[in-house]
Amino acid sequence: MSNRTEALSKPVVEKSDHKQPLGPRYADEKTTLKALEEIKASIKGISVSLDPDDLESHGYAEWSASNIPERPFAVVMPTTTEEVSTIARICTKYKVPMIPFGAGSSVEGHFTAPFTGISIDLSKMNKIVSLNADDMDVIVQPGVNWVNLNDQIKESGLFLPLDPSPTAHIGGMVATNCSGTNAMRYGTMKDWVVNVTVVLADGSVIKTRRRPRKTSAGYNLTCLFVGSEGTLGIITEITLKLAVIPSSYGVATTTFPSVKEAAAAASKLIRRGIPLAALELMDDVQMQVINKTGGAGGRMWPEKATLFIKFSGSTESAVRDNMEQAQEISKAYGGADFELAKSQEEMDSLWAARKQALWAMLALREEGTEIWSTDVAVPLSRMAEIIDHSKENSSKLGLFSSVMGHVGDGNFHQAVMYDPRNAKQTASVKKCVDDMVDMALEMDGTVSGEHGIGIGKKHCLEKELSPDAIAVMRSLKQTLDPHCLLNPGKIFDN
Amino acid sequence: MSNRTEALSKPVVEKSDHKQPLGPRYADEKTTLKALEEIKASIKGISVSLDPDDLESHGYAEWSASNIPERPFAVVMPTTTEEVSTIARICTKYKVPMIPFGAGSSVEGHFTAPFTGISIDLSKMNKIVSLNADDMDVIVQPGVNWVNLNDQIKESGLFLPLDPSPTAHIGGMVATNCSGTNAMRYGTMKDWVVNVTVVLADGSVIKTRRRPRKTSAGYNLTCLFVGSEGTLGIITEITLKLAVIPSSYGVATTTFPSVKEAAAAASKLIRRGIPLAALELMDDVQMQVINKTGGAGGRMWPEKATLFIKFSGSTESAVRDNMEQAQEISKAYGGADFELAKSQEEMDSLWAARKQALWAMLALREEGTEIWSTDVAVPLSRMAEIIDHSKENSSKLGLFSSVMGHVGDGNFHQAVMYDPRNAKQTASVKKCVDDMVDMALEMDGTVSGEHGIGIGKKHCLEKELSPDAIAVMRSLKQTLDPHCLLNPGKIFDN
Repeated sequence: MSNRTEALSKPVVEKSDHKQPLGPRYADEKTTLKALEEIKASIKGISVSLDPDDLESHGYAEWSASNIPERPFAVVMPTTTEEVSTIARICTKYKVPMIPFGAGSSVEGHFTAPFTGISIDLSKMNKIVSLNADDMDVIVQPGVNWVNLNDQIKESGLFLPLDPSPTAHIGGMVATNCSGTNAMRYGTMKDWVVNVTVVLADGSVIKTRRRPRKTSAGYNLTCLFVGSEGTLGIITEITLKLAVIPSSYGVATTTFPSVKEAAAAASKLIRRGIPLAALELMDDVQMQVINKTGGAGGRMWPEKATLFIKFSGSTESAVRDNMEQAQEISKAYGGADFELAKSQEEMDSLWAARKQALWAMLALREEGTEIWSTDVAVPLSRMAEIIDHSKENSSKLGLFSSVMGHVGDGNFHQAVMYDPRNAKQTASVKKCVDDMVDMALEMDGTVSGEHGIGIGKKHCLEKELSPDAIAVMRSLKQTLDPHCLLNPGKIFDN
Repeated sequence: MSNRTEALSKPVVEKSDHKQPLGPRYADEKTTLKALEEIKASIKGISVSLDPDDLESHGYAEWSASNIPERPFAVVMPTTTEEVSTIARICTKYKVPMIPFGAGSSVEGHFTAPFTGISIDLSKMNKIVSLNADDMDVIVQPGVNWVNLNDQIKESGLFLPLDPSPTAHIGGMVATNCSGTNAMRYGTMKDWVVNVTVVLADGSVIKTRRRPRKTSAGYNLTCLFVGSEGTLGIITEITLKLAVIPSSYGVATTTFPSVKEAAAAASKLIRRGIPLAALELMDDVQMQVINKTGGAGGRMWPEKATLFIKFSGSTESAVRDNMEQAQEISKAYGGADFELAKSQEEMDSLWAARKQALWAMLALREEGTEIWSTDVAVPLSRMAEIIDHSKENSSKLGLFSSVMGHVGDGNFHQAVMYDPRNAKQTASVKKCVDDMVDMALEMDGTVSGEHGIGIGKKHCLEKELSPDAIAVMRSLKQTLDPHCLLNPGKIFDN
């Protein structure tokens, strides 16, 4: 985004896309430009862009199920907490919406700009501030990519054990309380955040905690900001707990006649207390998708419901014992084609099908079709039932869909292929997702296991919680952001 | 408390104890009586007591470091969420302070009544509502004792892996975000709460979540109420995750020349990633205390800094391997007297000294002396330093004190003996605790690892966090409890 700050003096060319005009509650175009001038004057050298390509890449994503026509008015790229604070102060002064932007990997439209405003891109804040290996923690800026982080700290023998999209930044991971395949063993993002530094709407800066791994001092502000999707404050620094990299790993795969048997085996594996690192389920369709796109790990796969199991431990023998236990349990539940891998190469090969699942689905798309990827979570025992029901429902609606489940958490993803130009198909996919959400709620589950609410699931959250519970959330939002300037229109309507 | 409801018509005999009169902000005595009459009229058969013994047991505790002269005006014992809701509605109508009361095991004065008001004793709400073994969760009322819970559900192969005081109730454990020796492996209370049902100040009832083990839908209200010490709402039902009872255990003890070497060995044990279930440290003084009170586990102990290590796993061989690894590491750091136990009897015997530590200290008190028990937590690498410093400091101040550390969490307790009738000694113990707190903060730690703030550590919390961070906490309190009726005077001054 170099040399784009001069764009401020250019006419705004993308107006026709802004179908929802800047409302009376927020700054109009002229006032927003004034705010941007003040930001430029206050922060020497700050990158400010009105370039249509930048606005597009900060307001739309190909992989998102929640795109809207509006785009941010401008993109700014601060480099320090102080700069974010200055931006917030000025945006509050002029009533300009602020949309924190991380890696843009959200599928629920977290970074969209329904009321336009300024996209605050934090990707220049990408420093590892301090690795405290002896304390098993690390302090990072929000723009740090988690894969890079783990690569850079691996000599310490420590790692951050979350694994969302490999493109994700820590800031976004915190803001959405992300997780991934490791959540069964290691929990979700909230379990790894020691403290956050947050810029509030008015520009004031707070740090929610110091650096103890454990505390019971005062309200848990850390957990309030984790998962708040940028609507309560802008996270500008994070202290993360780190875990010890296990010294021994193993991977196993096994197939089942149906999702039901696979889920039953998974349940037994969990209840036996075997310390699994991950327990993933892919359905027959997803395995077909893998094969149709050329297989994975250098081979073709049985097209059946398949469990992918990762083991880890502090000794080779513990991992081997656990793998034997898992094989025995799987067999008792109809598991076949049991394969074990202990060498890195073999493990990568076995895990490849799981790893490539979403990409395989994307690769299979015909020109113009898109993937609607969504997730819900239910109590563990209901997993097989909701997957079966969702498969049947999408099939009835004439949709092609595959299922991947973080079965150790009761959390699963359905990826549905559809043509957005086809109104009937678009309506069907929406119905399919709504049905899945409704069934998850009937089972006492949640409308989002790990993707967040964003703009795409606001109507679902209203079904999940009582009006009084949502009123409490709204009152917290109102208290911390009285002018509703922080990522407005996300989580709930303001 | 049977047959005490008629006490309402008796004169209030304990007035002389209420040094802090009912302020203008809260209901006066006449209005409080009116509120109690309305509670009695609205809730058939509710237990309401003004008996001085009940007021005493609900406003004072021998083991607390934060006793105050005031007592609650009355004690009520609701049996359902609806009854608590009615009480809250009436208390709000008449501006009567509400103090939720669990088992009364707090050491920081959480259940005290600085502005008198009504103690809402939840111990009659002691039902296990529903055990969902296949979902690995359980729904309980707040008055359930955690030891009883684990005893009643053990057939399922599941347990709640927290271990605070054996007298603690789940409600209080949630309200203070408790932990104990298992926190290293299993985390703290917040990590085991799926949802809470909360009665808000005005009597409205919310449930923070449904029953998924994992979610990223909306603000994390659950974590906001966990650890809020009854100041944001009254918790009346809790869904808890459960863990699988490990099939194999082991215990080891080993001594070191000093706390420093013990802490260094502990650090290495953690960094090797050995899946320890607990890692506890007791200093030479604490071991002397054990011996002076007759030993523990049927024998006398070396009077040296000692590590108590608990192992658990899914196979016997994994636990044995881990015990061997631990022994090897301990020896490398000067560990001696290494003892291993695998049978239940031997394990109980080895763990007995750790288990009896606080009771041994209490037993050693001379007539009239008390124990000031407090805790802080620091980043892992600073543990030895702060323990050494605190030992030295208390010794300089002429105080007898012992140290127990949850060394796997950087959390430790110092128990200091003092005579509350001796002004100089009381001043010394306060200075000793304040110094420890200050040092923890200098090390980027917290003023309370697991006991909470209550009334005793309000001045410490103000040192831990910035005024802006505390202002955010206050604003949340103000939003949810605008008349400051919920456990007023706790965490911070209102």
